[in-house]
Order: sequence, then structure tokens, then C-alpha cells
Amino acid sequence: MSFNTFGKLFRFTTWGESHGPAIGCIVDGCPPNISINENDLQKELNKRKPGQSKFTTQRKEDDKVEILSGIFSGKTTGTPISMIIYNKDMRSRDYETIKNKFRPGHADYTYFKKYGIRDYRGGGRQSARETASRVAAGAIAKKVLEKKLGKKYKVIGAVTQLGIIGCDTKNWNEKIINKNPFFCPDKSILKIWEKYLLGIRKLGSSCGAIIEVRVRGVPVGLGAPIYSKLDMDLASAMMSINAVKGVNIGAGMNSSALTGEENSDEIIQKGKYPIFKSNNAGGILGGISSGQEIIVSFAVKPTSSILKSRKTIDKFGKNTSISVKGRHDPCVGIRAVPIGEAMAHCVILDHFLMNKAQCGK
Amino acid sequence: MSFNTFGKLFRFTTWGESHGPAIGCIVDGCPPNISINENDLQKELNKRKPGQSKFTTQRKEDDKVEILSGIFSGKTTGTPISMIIYNKDMRSRDYETIKNKFRPGHADYTYFKKYGIRDYRGGGRQSARETASRVAAGAIAKKVLEKKLGKKYKVIGAVTQLGIIGCDTKNWNEKIINKNPFFCPDKSILKIWEKYLLGIRKLGSSCGAIIEVRVRGVPVGLGAPIYSKLDMDLASAMMSINAVKGVNIGAGMNSSALTGEENSDEIIQKGKYPIFKSNNAGGILGGISSGQEIIVSFAVKPTSSILKSRKTIDKFGKNTSISVKGRHDPCVGIRAVPIGEAMAHCVILDHFLMNKAQCGK
Amino acid sequence: MSFNTFGKLFRFTTWGESHGPAIGCIVDGCPPNISINENDLQKELNKRKPGQSKFTTQRKEDDKVEILSGIFSGKTTGTPISMIIYNKDMRSRDYETIKNKFRPGHADYTYFKKYGIRDYRGGGRQSARETASRVAAGAIAKKVLEKKLGKKYKVIGAVTQLGIIGCDTKNWNEKIINKNPFFCPDKSILKIWEKYLLGIRKLGSSCGAIIEVRVRGVPVGLGAPIYSKLDMDLASAMMSINAVKGVNIGAGMNSSALTGEENSDEIIQKGKYPIFKSNNAGGILGGISSGQEIIVSFAVKPTSSILKSRKTIDKFGKNTSISVKGRHDPCVGIRAVPIGEAMAHCVILDHFLMNKAQCGK
Amino acid sequence: MSFNTFGKLFRFTTWGESHGPAIGCIVDGCPPNISINENDLQKELNKRKPGQSKFTTQRKEDDKVEILSGIFSGKTTGTPISMIIYNKDMRSRDYETIKNKFRPGHADYTYFKKYGIRDYRGGGRQSARETASRVAAGAIAKKVLEKKLGKKYKVIGAVTQLGIIGCDTKNWNEKIINKNPFFCPDKSILKIWEKYLLGIRKLGSSCGAIIEVRVRGVPVGLGAPIYSKLDMDLASAMMSINAVKGVNIGAGMNSSALTGEENSDEIIQKGKYPIFKSNNAGGILGGISSGQEIIVSFAVKPTSSILKSRKTIDKFGKNTSISVKGRHDPCVGIRAVPIGEAMAHCVILDHFLMNKAQCGK
Repeated sequence: MSFNTFGKLFRFTTWGESHGPAIGCIVDGCPPNISINENDLQKELNKRKPGQSKFTTQRKEDDKVEILSGIFSGKTTGTPISMIIYNKDMRSRDYETIKNKFRPGHADYTYFKKYGIRDYRGGGRQSARETASRVAAGAIAKKVLEKKLGKKYKVIGAVTQLGIIGCDTKNWNEKIINKNPFFCPDKSILKIWEKYLLGIRKLGSSCGAIIEVRVRGVPVGLGAPIYSKLDMDLASAMMSINAVKGVNIGAGMNSSALTGEENSDEIIQKGKYPIFKSNNAGGILGGISSGQEIIVSFAVKPTSSILKSRKTIDKFGKNTSISVKGRHDPCVGIRAVPIGEAMAHCVILDHFLMNKAQCGK
Repeated sequence: MSFNTFGKLFRFTTWGESHGPAIGCIVDGCPPNISINENDLQKELNKRKPGQSKFTTQRKEDDKVEILSGIFSGKTTGTPISMIIYNKDMRSRDYETIKNKFRPGHADYTYFKKYGIRDYRGGGRQSARETASRVAAGAIAKKVLEKKLGKKYKVIGAVTQLGIIGCDTKNWNEKIINKNPFFCPDKSILKIWEKYLLGIRKLGSSCGAIIEVRVRGVPVGLGAPIYSKLDMDLASAMMSINAVKGVNIGAGMNSSALTGEENSDEIIQKGKYPIFKSNNAGGILGGISSGQEIIVSFAVKPTSSILKSRKTIDKFGKNTSISVKGRHDPCVGIRAVPIGEAMAHCVILDHFLMNKAQCGK
Repeated sequence: MSFNTFGKLFRFTTWGESHGPAIGCIVDGCPPNISINENDLQKELNKRKPGQSKFTTQRKEDDKVEILSGIFSGKTTGTPISMIIYNKDMRSRDYETIKNKFRPGHADYTYFKKYGIRDYRGGGRQSARETASRVAAGAIAKKVLEKKLGKKYKVIGAVTQLGIIGCDTKNWNEKIINKNPFFCPDKSILKIWEKYLLGIRKLGSSCGAIIEVRVRGVPVGLGAPIYSKLDMDLASAMMSINAVKGVNIGAGMNSSALTGEENSDEIIQKGKYPIFKSNNAGGILGGISSGQEIIVSFAVKPTSSILKSRKTIDKFGKNTSISVKGRHDPCVGIRAVPIGEAMAHCVILDHFLMNKAQCGK
Repeated sequence: MSFNTFGKLFRFTTWGESHGPAIGCIVDGCPPNISINENDLQKELNKRKPGQSKFTTQRKEDDKVEILSGIFSGKTTGTPISMIIYNKDMRSRDYETIKNKFRPGHADYTYFKKYGIRDYRGGGRQSARETASRVAAGAIAKKVLEKKLGKKYKVIGAVTQLGIIGCDTKNWNEKIINKNPFFCPDKSILKIWEKYLLGIRKLGSSCGAIIEVRVRGVPVGLGAPIYSKLDMDLASAMMSINAVKGVNIGAGMNSSALTGEENSDEIIQKGKYPIFKSNNAGGILGGISSGQEIIVSFAVKPTSSILKSRKTIDKFGKNTSISVKGRHDPCVGIRAVPIGEAMAHCVILDHFLMNKAQCGK
């Protein structure tokens, strides 16, 4: 039972507020003798960090991560790995004017009512800034899994829908995903998305997105039948990301509209290995990985901080309105891609270790 | 870390296989001095039990629950509540012919590969029979919350989509939900669903469903900002139900297609209490309940056990095919309604107790 | 976080009251493919069960255990193992006269004050009857470890002090331990103990005991440096047994009176393996097993239910006195031997699985 | 399940190695709106820090703690509190000569065998330096409890035995404890201890100690009957401190030598409150606090790093010997006093919150 820890055997605990001195993360349960250095983490953090294109917030953060423990002579020692990222480009004054107002769509109202106190600067703990810590944790999980499962292990996330415009996942092209500002896998839609998002931004509005994360090279057998289902933990992981409101495994919500024969993936033995003729299950059957590609997708709601004026109340219970200036992403969903990947790494490693424990393989 | 336990402070552990002597459940962490008797549990179990209409499996199970501990003079004592349900109408021979085959869409293949052994009779542990235990646990949580939160607390689940046919939730009528075999809230669609499902059954096929669970009377403040988000735990709870492949909170997956101003729910003070003008958030902001109605929906895939022949392999790696006779629900989603309600009760109580612990209210 | 569960990866949850219909236990996280049958459990339970000699309570309980799940074709399947023991020889009327009185040395007062309600019959949940469930769980852990570690793995408990009379552990003789009613390892003291305990019983009094548990065949490397120390978990396990008030690892409390050179166990390489010249560490260094014999001992206070009249109060706050008749052990410590062994098995297996998870061996 | 986290609802996670850049601690689950500043923590840390008298190590560490999160406007916000202490006076070269040798009595051998890698500088993670983090966590728990329970709540630790010389606890005088270098409560023994310990140090040897921690002002009702016993968690807490080998609650190991009537504490009603005539139970009955003073004591083994030459082996399996120079405490037990106090604060707060959750008070 823990409020700020994720995972069971491979666990990470994050801490820190958006405008405090720093944020950070402790990884516990990491296997020993894994080569890890700060560059490994930085590479992943750079994918998430703000200010990289005109489509993300202009807050300037290096997101430079330092490792403070758990690594000796370049290798993990089995002790907790503490990582810290100092906050730099904080403009706390930006928040003075709204410190008593509850921004609609944000956690301002619920936080204050729950705790009776809140750090309103940049959203405090509720800021998506926390997710940098997870990306660092995910980078460690990735290194461990690459060593344990080999080259075939790979996690790839992409944006498959931007606002009202979906891309065609049949055009999925992994080579382009990290080469466009949208983490889009479909070349044919790029121009349209660019136009669309510029329009959204110009209007002082924002839009949502759907992110799809694919995991390859996971052996059959990770997960458990009931309350440690692999899909349950993936859903939990993705739903823990700020602004996520829905999660699908494989065919997801659409599986409701399929018939039994459309949905259940037939199995055919080909040589030594079984092949599944389709993948509506998203690589998970009965909570356990089947060896197929694991597919999880999730929806990120539109950024709630928008220029358009919105009705709200203040902490004294008075009606008022708000228009959030600051520096905000027109679509926070875009930066959720490396976060979704990181969470997938962490869940897979967690279940890999659990399987090792119970089934010895 | 636990494979068969759900919850943090209000915890339940289930056990048992479909064709073993019994199934059961231990509830731990229940507050003392709550009046509970077996009838309270039976009422909920009866909603889930099979053989109640022509639209569910014809397996005959009383699902009669006995309480073995934790209650003294009709009241909870704070010690673990053990409940047992004996299995009765087992026809294990039905499964002899398929004991070496992996049914597509089922966990047969993944279980066997993980554990190297499996109780194939009726799906063993992977059978939806396990969910009877959760319904019993949920009935206890319900009693506790009704005492702690009063009459205003209420959880109502309904089927809002059956296969390809959605109902109109604007016609939501709570009075009819428990009076039709589909737990349907929209009177206007009943006849159509009946015809549709009979057709599906006649074809030896099956269909999926979407279930929506609404929770009323939850105070503002349940949940936590990051890894104990209320929506995260609800998603986890629903995804742990057999055959669930997608979970939405409020606008859910559709929130991706909204703009910031469409999505964020404006707040207006009316007398002593704030009113939200819409509820895309599904009653949860930043992982914490807002006092609005909590809305969670989830998709149940179509029953995988169908008459139609499907290609598969056996445990020796040989290609074969399968046609499942037995006694199966044409739409397992229908019986998921009381299960979804039960899981909602358990999650809400868990967070109610956590809030009590940390915030003292 | 759990009130009635012990363990991290190999976990068991117990339930049941002394005079309820039954008591029981769920084991979760047990590895699959381990041969286990009810006889394996019964053998261990028989060591603990009451009424076996004139030195233990005359309550007659078969303590016949039934397995309700988790075993298929004689082998564990990886799913939870549910075990039940029905209560038989309950004389609840014996407790009517004391139902409003708080027995000194018992949990009566504290339970009532905490929960505001209590099952006073036979001590309810606080009865040592609960320990039968642990013995069943321990029997399962034992079977798993015997398979994983081989014949060299062995746990032996014995009473080394009865009241004021200690035995000489230099005379430790394992062959006699299970052949005398005291689980005494020192033949030379047997007669004296018998006389002493008969005297105690005749006086309507009771005495305490010290139990020592030795664990052999544990590989080096189980445990962890800080908050999952093997000795920490052993101390926790033993202190969870009813009436235990002190726990020692190796030299234990006496290590305070040693000098550095007396205490630290020198190491000498002999062929392939290191030999320790002494074992003040009790087989655990820095929280991690060293491969030496693990030695844990604990003190059980004298039975609090005695014939002698004691001053106390009732639940209305009135002064009164009490003399407990019923059927009680003159020294509950004796029956703590199989319980201490069971807890040792469970802790060792738990750490064995954790080591597998993190260090892969 | 966690290797580096302590607690259930009030949880702290520590990280860091003796000769790494820093050590630190995350406190999770702290109630909001508690006034805390760095001075509150520093005061407690100063009691533990080295180099304060000729009887402790001469390593010079300010142990200056910084708070990085979780506090806003001087008050806790309910989010994780991250604390960091930079390491300063590290002389890692001191350890070069022994980097391949396993120091007897230390965790060197077991660590290396478990993880296959170890940071040998100053004991790495196994160094008692980690305990500074706990003292910081304990200082937070103390502040919370002082607010929740009021002035009557107090924890006082003292050394009651130094090597072979016990003090007389009947002379227990709280005013002198923090005014002598031994945290000794008995004025009459001070001179003798001083002479004794100087002798030990001169010989290049070391000695053990017994620490007693008393907790006052704890309400009746904290704890739980079986696997969350208050005494179980206190034993676990104390046994997690480096070099601790035994733990007693109340009469502890000595309770084995008492008769039932000597041991069980009689109860007498005096006005509104019950009075216990003795306190062999150490304030805990059946795992639940009775409202009496809670008394826990533990033994710390003698420092294993001594000048005297000891036989050992190196990591290549060769016989060798070792004589540890460095800067070491002749009796590490002395500095365990503030650590024992800190752990007591944390356990009490943890159970205070659990009681709030389950019993609402």
C-alpha cells in the first residue's frame, strides 16, 4: 500500500513538485550487475523533455538526471538507485494570479478539498513534470530487460490519433516515429496533423490524443490469472499517467462489437512455435502474455490549461472565471509517448521478476 | 505483492477452481461493528448466478454463500471474514475431450505454458466462477459504505451496449435495470436486444458488451495524485474481471477527440456546493473524487467458447480444431454487471479507508 | 499492508475464531508442480494438536485439514491453496461466566477497547488455535523447499528452557526431540522437567519457555541488506506467535556482553567452502544468510489462563477478580515448537523466492 | 514487498551508500498540514551523528539534511517528503587494502555472494550510515504524533547495558540521558562505563550494548491480533537496525522464567482509567497497545571492525587475516539510541494511521 510507489518487485517511488527545488525517483528491486549510466537515462528523458518543438510547452528544462546511489563501477549493485532532476526554468510568479482559483479539468479543486493545503505553483505534485521520474525508472527497466531478453525485446510507442484525426495503423512505420514532432507512425497523415494542431494552438484551445504502445519479444507466461493480470497492471500503469481517461488492450473497447468467432484469435502450429492468426487479445490471454506482440493503447484528454475563458470557483466558494496563459502543450498527449513506453518497460520487468520467483523461469 | 488479493486496506483474497469442491473469499480489513448477514451477500450473488434466463449459461448453481468467520452476534468484529460457496453442478466429463486442446480466446495455452500444469475442468482457476467470490466481497463493502456514507451512496451498473447495438444512455432508467435479463437501462432497446441475442445464440456464436457503472454519494477527496489514483484503481479493478479488454473513466477513449473547452468541466457555486456543468471527468480529477457521479465503463469481449469450429493446437504442438459445446453464456458481459458493481464498492471503500488514514476524514 | 497475511512472495492468510465453525488458511504464491497431499499437512498438524499428553490442554481437536483448491492430480498448480480445519470440541458455555471480564495477560481488554466488540468464546481470534493454520502453511513451504534445496534442507525446533530450568544445548540430540512430550533435545533434563511441570500444573499455575529453531541447508544469499533482512523477517515471524515476548538471532541478547573478537565469527577456507569457526551470527550476516546453520530462539510467556485468582476489571469498568478454569496448557511454549518451525519454513521460502526474483538464483 | 522501504501506511524508503555522493530518504503517507522544518530533523540527526565524543567514530559528518519536496509554506502537503544528506568526510582510500577481503562479523561475504558485486567503500549500503535516513524519517513521525496525541506522547531511549555492565533501571533518570555520551539513564554507573569503554578502546577491541526504548502517551488500541501485531512490527523495526541480534518486549526473554501469576499484569480500575499493577507485557497485549508505557529493548552486537587481527578469507577463496584500522565506534550500540527512538516513532505512527483507517479513531 503506497501512494507514490509503482510496482511489486521492480518498484519505483517518485517525489517532487513542479516548482520545488528538484524531482526524483528511487528504483528498488533492480537486479545486480546491469550496466547502466546516466546517458542511458538521458536518452529517454530527452524524448519527453519540453521545449523541443513548437507543439510542446516552451518551458525550458534540461531534465538532466543524476544518479546518486545503487551503481558501482558502472553496474547496478542490487541496492536502491536514487535519481534526481533539478528544476530550473520555474516561473512561479505566473501562478500568483490563479493561486486561489480552481482550474477546470485540473486537480486543483480535488487536491485542496482532500488535503486542505496545496502547492499551487505549476500544479505542484499534480504537474506532468512528475512523469520525468518515471521515464528515468523506465530507462532502467529497459536496460535490464534488454540484457535478460536480448535484442528481440522492444517497446515502441506512437500517437495514433490526434484530436479528431486518427492515423492509419496499417501504415505503421517505426523508422519515422522518432523523427517527427508527433511520434506519428503514419507518414501520410503528418502534414494534416501539423496543420490541425497549429490551428488548435492559434485558437488558444487544445486537443486530446490516443497513444499506442507495442511490446515485442516478451516470452509467453508473464502475468497471473486473477489479481496480477498483466493487462490489469498495464491498464493501471497507463491510467496513472496524468490526463489519461481510457485504456485498451488489443481490440479493447471495440471487442464489445465483435462476435466470438471474429474475436478469438485462432492458433496454428508452425514448426516449433504456435502462430496466432490475429491479435485481438493484444498479446494477453487470461492475464498472461501469449508471446504475441503486446498492444496497449490509451487516451489522453486535451490539455486543460487553455486561453479560452472558463467558468470556475475560487477557494472561498465564489464564482469567477479563468483563462490560463502560462506555457502549455496544445496536446499533452504527444509527450505521453515516452511515458507510456517507460510504464510498459516497468510493468514487463515487474512481471518478469515475478515469474522468475514463482515459476523459476 | 500478491497474485490473488485485491485492495490495499480493504482487501479480499479469492481462491478456488470451477470444478473443485468449493470457491471462496477472505475479506481482511473490514471495519468492526457493521451488521452483516448471509442474506446481504446472497442478494448480490443471486444477480450474478447462472441459469436465470435463457440468455445465460444453463449450469445450475445455487451460489449459496456461508460465512465462516469474522461475524459475531450479527456484526463484524474486525477479524477476517471467510466465505465459502460449494460447487455443485459440475460436469467435469464435459471437459475430458478438450483437456489437451487450447481453446482460442481462452487462457488455456498461456496457463499451461506458464505453470506447466493446469486444471482444465471448466477452465479451472481461470473460470468466471471466481467472480462469485468478488460479488460476496463487494456485498460486504457495500454494507460498510452504506453505514459510513448513508443512503445517498449508491452503485448502479448496466449494460449499455450489446454486441453491435448500443442503448441510449439518455433514456437511463434505474427502475428497469434489475427487471430485465440484460441489466439494460433503456426500455426502448429491450426488444431489439432480445431478438439480436437470440439470433447470436442460434448461430452458435456470441457477442461482447459494454457495461457502465455509476457511483453516487462519494465525497470529494477519495484517491491520491499519482500511484493510488482512484481512476487507476478502478481501471485495475475492472480490467481484473475475466474477458474485460478496455476501461473508460468518464468520456474515456472519446476524450481524445474533444477540445480543451469541450472537455474540461466548468464549475459553478450554487449555495454551499459547487456544481459541475458537465461530467467528462467521470467524477475524478487528478486521481481524486470530485463529489460528482463517478462513471466507469468497460468492454467485455464475446464469450470465447462457441459452437463454431475454430483452428487451434493441442499441448503436444499439433494442429487441430475445436468446437465448444458445454453450457455457455452467449454474452458473458451481461453477468459482468454485478461484478463491476462489486469491484466499484471495494475500490471506493478501500480509498475511503485510505483517506481516513492519511487525512483523517 | 495486511492484518492477517504473512509473507511477501510466499504469502499465507489465516482466518477463523476459536469457537466459530472452522479456521483456515490461504497460501498464495506457491510454485507449481510440487507434490502435496493432505497427509503432508496432517503430519505437521499432529505435532501441534492439543490433547496429546498430560502436559497440554485436554481440548480434543482432530485438527483434520482439508485442501479445497490449488492442487490438481496431486500437484500444486500455482493457484491459491485453500485449507480448512473444522472446530469440533468447543465448549462455548465455559466462557459465559467470563464474557464481560478481561483476563489479565490476555488480549481481552485491548481487543475490546480497539474494536468495541469481541468474540469472547475461547479467546476468539486471539486464541492460539489460529496457529494450526500456520502449521498447515508451513507444511507446504517445507515441501517446496525440500524439492528446491534437497535433502540437506532441514528445520528442527526444540524447547531449550522450561520455566526456570534450561537444558544444555551441548547435549542437543535431534533423535529424541519428537519422542518426548516437551520437544526437549537434552535427554539428561527430561525427568527434571517432567517433575517441574507437574508441580506447576498441580499448583494451578503455569510457566514460560524458550524455543530454539535451527535451519540447515539454506544457501548463502537469502535476505537483503536493510528492510528485508532475513533476521528481521524471522524476528517478525516469531513475534507474531501468540505469547512470544522476545526473539534472539544467534547469540541474541547475549551478544551485548561479548567483545568484538569474541563475537565476530572468523572465516577459514576449507577446500571449496568457507567454514566459520563459531556461529554467534546465527547464520545471518548483514541480514543475509551465510550458509551456516540459522539459529533463532524465542521466549514464550507463561499461559495467562491460570487457576489462581487474579485482580481485574470487567467491561463496565468495575473491579473484580478472575480464576480461569477451562482446559489450558500449563506451558503453551511446548506447542510453540511446530509453530516456530512452520514460521521458519515460510520465511525461508519467501526469501528463496525473492532471491530468485532479484538475483536469479 | 520491498527491500528498502519500511512501514505500511507511513512508509519511508532509504537509499545511498556510505561513500557515494549522498544518502537520503522518501517519506510517503505523511498526513498533511503538519508544521515541519529542517531544524526539527536536524535536532534528531545531531544525536546520532558521529564525532561527538571520544566514544564514537571520528569520521566528521555534519549530517546536514535538506528537504526537497512535500513541504509548502512550512507545512506538509500530503505528498512525498524527499530528504537528502550529502556525504562529506569520506576516505575511500582507507578501504582499498581490504577491498577483496571479507571482514568477519560484517556483511562483506554475504553481500558479495548474493549480488556478485559490492561497493566495498565504508561498507557501502551495509554501513550504519543508512540509519541517518531513518532518524530523519523518525523526526517527521515524531512531529505528526506530537500534533495528533499531544504533549503526553513521548519516546525515550537509553543504553541500559554497556558490554558486561548493566545499569540499574530503577535509577532511570530521563534528565541525564541526553547529557552524557552514553545516553545512560543511571547516574551511578556513568564513571564505571567511562573507564570500561576507554579500556575496551585502548585494547583495540569493542563491546556490545542493550538499548531500551520507552514510549509514553500511546492510546489503547494500536496494533492488530495476528500479523500486524504492534510488538511484531516493533521487533521487526529494531531488528532492521544494523548489528541488532535480539529484541525484547516488556519482560522479553525473561518472561520464560516467570510463572503465570508473576507474569500476567493485574488490572485495577482507578476512577475513569484502568491501572496495571505491573508491566511485564511492555504495554502490549495480544499485539495491541494497552495504554501502558510501551517498553522495547534490543541488543547491539560489538563493532566488528576491530584492531585485533582476525582470520578470514578473500574473494578468491584464499585464507588471510584482517585488522581493521579506519575510524570506528568502540561501541556502536551507543549511537543506536536515536535510531531506536526513530524506529519507534515510525511504527507508532504507522499503527496510529492503520487504527484510524479500520476503527476510525
